[in-house]
Amino acid sequence: MGRYLSQTVTIAVDAMGGDHAPGVVIDGCALSLERHPETRFLLFGDDEKISPHLKRHTALVAASEVHHTPDAVPMDAKPAQAVRQGRKSSMAMAITAVKVKRAQAVISAGSTGALMAMSKIQLRTFPGVGRPAIAAIWPTIGGETLVLDVGANVDSDIKQLVDFAILGEAFAHTVLHRARPRVGLLNVGSEDVKGNEVVKAVDALLRAADLPMDYVGYVEGDDISAGVVDVVVTDGFTGNIALKTAEGTAKLVAHYLRGALTSSPLSKFGALLASGGLKALKEKMDPRSANGGVFLGLNGLVVKSHGGTDALGFASALDLSIDLSGSDFGAHITSALESVHDKVKAADEALKAEKRAKKEAASK
Amino acid sequence: MGRYLSQTVTIAVDAMGGDHAPGVVIDGCALSLERHPETRFLLFGDDEKISPHLKRHTALVAASEVHHTPDAVPMDAKPAQAVRQGRKSSMAMAITAVKVKRAQAVISAGSTGALMAMSKIQLRTFPGVGRPAIAAIWPTIGGETLVLDVGANVDSDIKQLVDFAILGEAFAHTVLHRARPRVGLLNVGSEDVKGNEVVKAVDALLRAADLPMDYVGYVEGDDISAGVVDVVVTDGFTGNIALKTAEGTAKLVAHYLRGALTSSPLSKFGALLASGGLKALKEKMDPRSANGGVFLGLNGLVVKSHGGTDALGFASALDLSIDLSGSDFGAHITSALESVHDKVKAADEALKAEKRAKKEAASK
Repeated sequence: MGRYLSQTVTIAVDAMGGDHAPGVVIDGCALSLERHPETRFLLFGDDEKISPHLKRHTALVAASEVHHTPDAVPMDAKPAQAVRQGRKSSMAMAITAVKVKRAQAVISAGSTGALMAMSKIQLRTFPGVGRPAIAAIWPTIGGETLVLDVGANVDSDIKQLVDFAILGEAFAHTVLHRARPRVGLLNVGSEDVKGNEVVKAVDALLRAADLPMDYVGYVEGDDISAGVVDVVVTDGFTGNIALKTAEGTAKLVAHYLRGALTSSPLSKFGALLASGGLKALKEKMDPRSANGGVFLGLNGLVVKSHGGTDALGFASALDLSIDLSGSDFGAHITSALESVHDKVKAADEALKAEKRAKKEAASK
Repeated sequence: MGRYLSQTVTIAVDAMGGDHAPGVVIDGCALSLERHPETRFLLFGDDEKISPHLKRHTALVAASEVHHTPDAVPMDAKPAQAVRQGRKSSMAMAITAVKVKRAQAVISAGSTGALMAMSKIQLRTFPGVGRPAIAAIWPTIGGETLVLDVGANVDSDIKQLVDFAILGEAFAHTVLHRARPRVGLLNVGSEDVKGNEVVKAVDALLRAADLPMDYVGYVEGDDISAGVVDVVVTDGFTGNIALKTAEGTAKLVAHYLRGALTSSPLSKFGALLASGGLKALKEKMDPRSANGGVFLGLNGLVVKSHGGTDALGFASALDLSIDLSGSDFGAHITSALESVHDKVKAADEALKAEKRAKKEAASK
């Protein structure tokens, strides 16, 4: 990351979202500002609650505007309820800042469902895109891979998964700067029971549509970390479980590592000598350093931070939103989407006609 | 593992299954025999191909019987094709040995689909169980957790997932010796979009059925490695992807670790001093040491090894099948299943009646 360090960007911050708001949010902004001194922050929330935290960070005070509102969306708010009752909430106002182009991105550690519902209503989806996805930037052996959806939708149909492939590919190209991103569809590994019906149909459609995309076909769970492709497409149920499982595994291995390096006095001494390298490893494996999910498919950049994160984690999500703010993803994708959707529609109709013809031939 | 070390068990081995059969299979048997000297092996396969490998292991020669057959199931065989054409294959004959109780377990590194299809036909499922699952024994912070299904079924309906919970619980009790296994249902983490319709229905049914089971409700992906429950229930699509993702993550972390410990001469020296502890870690993280999926729901113990594994990995799967052979899982589960299924059926009918009543009340 850090590709747009020199650019001035303005980030709209929901200062009241998250389990430890606004303290963690404000401290996170201060941390991120140290790394991106050109950034401006619009802080939305309760002035009285924000002030005591803000005044401890002189540089942040100079780089911020506080927009007071007493309303906040509760962490356990139902999306529909948040939309109805939260029009003047810090979350809604922060999203509006992106809508009216006062900010390049909005960030919140508040309720995922509320943030998604409010963002959809205010920012709207790209033409032809039914539902946005949450994309995670996954660390891999070679660098990073974009995985989507990791939790916005618990049931994804064929059309949505095709959309995710298109959105992910465009994002990897314009934002992650891959010249020709390779796109894979997450599937199971067994030789014979190759995927469920939805996955098979998406594969057929992506192959038939002849999109300007390097679609490589199926990938398996272990291909994600191996960095076999640039974009991994999956439904939100599977994607969320894969993401959480990876986090859990990293924690387990860290637990094993601690055990191994304290198993004897000699091991402890060795670990001390190797502490430089191990510190770098610790940072790499820190789930806080990969914090931040990007909502893809909306006319505006929305970044969701973990609700329970600390200042360091919130700063990582902020870094991500600052990095992404410099891109022209929105303009690029909107111009490309129409022709792509036409191709997908034509391929879909051709595949269906083929199926009908086969059926008729079989019944004769 | 190693709970039944002192017992004599006979394992039926498909010597021709796997990418590197029969060499890896025979070498794996020899390794496992060193650790379990009481074990007997029935080796099914092509005598001419087996002999050169077998004669290198004197102890194994004494502990084995070779049952010659020239037929083998190809790795890429379709299950139906394998069933039709593979009646005299090494895989089919090895399964028969369990069916006729000449062996306590069968092991194969051959095609998963073929092994499942043949096992179902020969061994049959437990009364009332529609489809078997593949269960993985997952390393956790506190010990081990059983995860099922990890790949036998790409679409699982409500009834199947309830079956998996029942089978998994019984297995954790009788084989993993948990006094009162905790059972969780794998789901996504978002506060508001709690699972898809199938998962919600399974949860409602498991709660309503009042089974003699400690069902704790939903768990998330990171709860698996954390060892929050003893049994994690999921469909084969999600379970397979979670398993592979965890394997990929462990590999990624190992890659980071190598980088960290060779990042400077001091780190290298430290790693050398800590090598005792690090070696133990390496063994723990070696995917070969956790090789072996158990087919659950069949009248007989079937263990599937990774097809591409080496002798060390095949030996791990063998160790697993030897350990499991000592249990009375089959007898226990068959006696318990009927009453459990009655309860599930009653709960299902009650839930449906409730739903109908609600609908009627709403329409008035």
